[in-house]
Amino acid sequence: MTTESSNTLAVARQAFAHFEQGLATGDWQAFLEMLTDDFSFWFPIGQFHGLNVGKERAQQFFSYVSEVYSEGLTLTLDRVTSNETTVVFEFCDEGLMWGNPYKNRVAVSFDVRGNKICGYREYLGSDGKSN
Amino acid sequence: MTTESSNTLAVARQAFAHFEQGLATGDWQAFLEMLTDDFSFWFPIGQFHGLNVGKERAQQFFSYVSEVYSEGLTLTLDRVTSNETTVVFEFCDEGLMWGNPYKNRVAVSFDVRGNKICGYREYLGSDGKSN
Repeated sequence: MTTESSNTLAVARQAFAHFEQGLATGDWQAFLEMLTDDFSFWFPIGQFHGLNVGKERAQQFFSYVSEVYSEGLTLTLDRVTSNETTVVFEFCDEGLMWGNPYKNRVAVSFDVRGNKICGYREYLGSDGKSN
Repeated sequence: MTTESSNTLAVARQAFAHFEQGLATGDWQAFLEMLTDDFSFWFPIGQFHGLNVGKERAQQFFSYVSEVYSEGLTLTLDRVTSNETTVVFEFCDEGLMWGNPYKNRVAVSFDVRGNKICGYREYLGSDGKSN
């Protein structure tokens, strides 16, 4: 693995730890601090479906996520793959969605620039009812 | 990159080329030949939702896929990430689904054993209407 690939993986793993903390607790501060000002993200469904541009939009999104899953989500990491600029985390998650049992399978792909995350794509592998 | 990682990436890229050919033409023979006998796959929605076990089940699935997208799907590869055993392909696809315009964003994660694919997980990044 090149030095660049190692750095990319280390930055993404740190961001993913903050992301996991955000999902569990609703405290997204540490994750948001790792995003570039021009951060953008793709989300598969609902009111944030498609491409979302800017850090402010990200703040709105993660705030919304923690309304939907107000008791927090627990993640079980499955696999991590990477290259020089991108790291994909495959995981299962579980918790309550608007108070109802929720489970899913998810892949999130983080793009790294320097020591920050400049973009992210989320993909869903199940239906919200099983993982 | 280690020798093992390089082999994993090369095997998965070959399989992905056959997968792309299968989606475009409906001819899945070359892809199916690269699957281990104990191949299993996860699919997010519909009648193949969840874990599907065995090569016969895979044959049924890909045959079904080519009924749904009978004119073929065209892929645009976005990113490839990997480790020693797994390779993730992020791509956009486009075509007709039961004759109606179809677009999506997809991540597929191939697990490699030797020179074959022993497992696969598919994740959807959009809604079938945009990519």
